Amino acid sequence: MTTQAAVYRGNKTFTLEAVTTPPPAAGEVQIDVAYCGICGTDLHIYLGHMDARVGFERTIGHEMSGVIAAVGDGVNDLKAGQRIVVRPLDHCGDCPACNAGHEHICHNLTFIGIDNSGAFQQKWNVPAHTIHMLPDDLDLSHAALIEPLAVACHDVARGKVQPSEDVLVIGGGPIGMLVAMVAREAGANVTISEINENRLNYARSVGFETMNPKEVDVAKAMNDATGGKGADVVFEVSGTQPGVDLMTAAAATRGRIVMVAIHASKPTIDMFQFFWRELDLIGARVYRPNDYDAAMALLAKGVVDCDSFITDIQSLENIQSAFETLTQNPNAMKSMIRISEDV
Amino acid sequence: MTTQAAVYRGNKTFTLEAVTTPPPAAGEVQIDVAYCGICGTDLHIYLGHMDARVGFERTIGHEMSGVIAAVGDGVNDLKAGQRIVVRPLDHCGDCPACNAGHEHICHNLTFIGIDNSGAFQQKWNVPAHTIHMLPDDLDLSHAALIEPLAVACHDVARGKVQPSEDVLVIGGGPIGMLVAMVAREAGANVTISEINENRLNYARSVGFETMNPKEVDVAKAMNDATGGKGADVVFEVSGTQPGVDLMTAAAATRGRIVMVAIHASKPTIDMFQFFWRELDLIGARVYRPNDYDAAMALLAKGVVDCDSFITDIQSLENIQSAFETLTQNPNAMKSMIRISEDV
Repeated sequence: MTTQAAVYRGNKTFTLEAVTTPPPAAGEVQIDVAYCGICGTDLHIYLGHMDARVGFERTIGHEMSGVIAAVGDGVNDLKAGQRIVVRPLDHCGDCPACNAGHEHICHNLTFIGIDNSGAFQQKWNVPAHTIHMLPDDLDLSHAALIEPLAVACHDVARGKVQPSEDVLVIGGGPIGMLVAMVAREAGANVTISEINENRLNYARSVGFETMNPKEVDVAKAMNDATGGKGADVVFEVSGTQPGVDLMTAAAATRGRIVMVAIHASKPTIDMFQFFWRELDLIGARVYRPNDYDAAMALLAKGVVDCDSFITDIQSLENIQSAFETLTQNPNAMKSMIRISEDV
Repeated sequence: MTTQAAVYRGNKTFTLEAVTTPPPAAGEVQIDVAYCGICGTDLHIYLGHMDARVGFERTIGHEMSGVIAAVGDGVNDLKAGQRIVVRPLDHCGDCPACNAGHEHICHNLTFIGIDNSGAFQQKWNVPAHTIHMLPDDLDLSHAALIEPLAVACHDVARGKVQPSEDVLVIGGGPIGMLVAMVAREAGANVTISEINENRLNYARSVGFETMNPKEVDVAKAMNDATGGKGADVVFEVSGTQPGVDLMTAAAATRGRIVMVAIHASKPTIDMFQFFWRELDLIGARVYRPNDYDAAMALLAKGVVDCDSFITDIQSLENIQSAFETLTQNPNAMKSMIRISEDV
C-alpha cells in the first residue's frame, strides 16, 4: 500500500509522492501522522540554507502528533492505536556528552526529520525510545505544539526563572512567544521586545507587556520599570545584533541571559558588561524528556491559547503553498499541515 | 607628622610627596602600610587609560598589607598593632545589587585605591568594615598577595570547579596564574595557554601543563587530551580576540566559561557554539568577604610559592622606576612596593 510523502527537492520545492513505507524494524514504531507544524528550521531547509546537511530527497518535519500504526520486534510497551508524539532526537550513547548525561546534545546527535526522514508523510517509522504518550483529552492538532513548547520549557528551565522575576523576551516569533508563556506560568513578569506590529498585536492580545525597540529604548525602559534593576532573566530569541546588544544592556546585576537563537554569524558582544555585572549567559538547545512532560502538562493547563496560536492548518497537498506563504508572511505564529485526514 | 605618599600626576608620572594624614574619622581605621603590590589596573592608570576616573592628584594602590596604627570613634572590634589587609570595596547599601546581596558589585561601588585614596602611602585611612585580620605567622609581603589571590578564589568559585575536572586557563599573567593555582588546589587538571615564553617557563616551573597557541592548536589539543570532551571549565584571562575564540572552541558540552578579563572593546563571539553545546558564560568581578578568607587559607597551605611569585620588591622611593620597568617587561608575576620599612 502506498501513502503520501512530501519530499524536499531543493530550489524551494516540495514534491508530493506516493511511497511504500516498510514495516517498522526491530525497536521501531510506525506512526500514522496526524499533524505536523512548520518549524523555523523547516523554513531554513526550504530556503536552501541547509542543503549540504539535508540533500534533495528528504522528507522533513518534526513538530508532529499521530497514532501508532504498528510496532517492531522488541517493542513491548507500546501498541497500535495509541496517541503519541515523537521527541525527534536520536543520540549515540557513547560520546562525552552522552557519557555526562547530556544525551539531548549528543556530539553525534541525529535530529529526526532533519538528518533523516521526518513527519511530512503519512506513515513514519521512528525509534521507540522517542515516543511520548498523549493524554486522552488532548486534541491532536494541539499536541503538534508539544515539540516547540518543549523547546520553550527547556529554555525557561535553563534560565531558572523564579516567581516574581522580571523577564525580557527579545523576539516575539513562535518560540519567543512560547518562552514568554512558559515564563509567565512560572510566575515571572514578562515583557516582549519585538519590531513586527502583527506579532506585537498578538502578544498584547494574549496579555503581554510589549516594547518596540524602533520606538523606545528597551533597556532604559526595563531599568526604569524595575527601579534601576533591569531584567532578572533575558531570553535572546531574535538572532540579531541589536538583540545581542539589548540582552547585555537590559540585564540586571547577576542576571541570566538565555541564548535561544541560532546566530549563524558571530555577533559582537559587550563582554565588559559580563564582567561588570557578573552576568551569566546560558546556551539552550532542544529539550530533554522531562521538557516534553512539562509541555504536555502546560498544554493541559491551557497555558497556550492553541486556537489563536495555530494560525492555519493546510492539507498535505498544499504544503508547497504553505511554505511559500510563510516565507512571505512573518506574521503567523504556527502554520500546521494536516498529514492524514483520517487520523 | 608628615609621611610619604606617591601621587599619580598623569603623563606616566608619580611624585613622592610629604603628606599629613588626618586621624581616622568615626568608623575608620588608620593603617601603617607595609607592602603594596602593583596591579594590572594600576598599570592602566599609570598609562593614562583611566585619567577621567582617577584624575591627577590621587594616591592609588590596593594590593596591600599593614598594621593598624589607630582606630576612629565607634570602631570597637579592632585596635592598634593588629596585622591586617584591606578588602578595598565600599558599597552603597541601597541599590538593586546591594539589595539582592551582591554588595561586591554594587551599582555605586567605590573601589578604594582607584576611586579614592589608596595604599601607595605610609598612612592610609579606610572604613573599618574593609579590614580582614591576618594570622600571626603570615609574612606581610606574602599577605599583600591576598587581594589578587581573592580575585582568583572568586573566579574559581564562580566557575564551580570540581575535583578531576579539566580546566583551561587562557592567559598566564599574574591573575591567570593564581586562577590556575586555585583551580589545581580544587582538584582540577589545569592547562595554561600563554604566548609569553617567560610566563610559560614560570608556569612549567610551578608544575603546570602549558600550551603556546602560536605553536599548537590549543582547542584541538585540549579535545585530544580529553577524549574529545574539551575543557569542563575555561577561564578567559587574556582579554584578547584570540582568547575569546579559543574559549568557545575548547569548552566541553555544558562547559563553563568564566569571563575574568576586562574587554574594553566588544569582541566577536561564537554564539552558535553556546547554543550547540549549551555553554555557560559566567562573569566574575572582584571578590566577596569569603574569598578573602579562602585566599588566606590557601596562602597558609602554601598553594602559592610566594618567593618565586613575588618577582621583586622596590622601595617607595623607586615607585616610578618600578612602574616603568613593569610596562616595559611583561615577564614579572608580581612587583611589590615596600611602603614603610619599619612596619
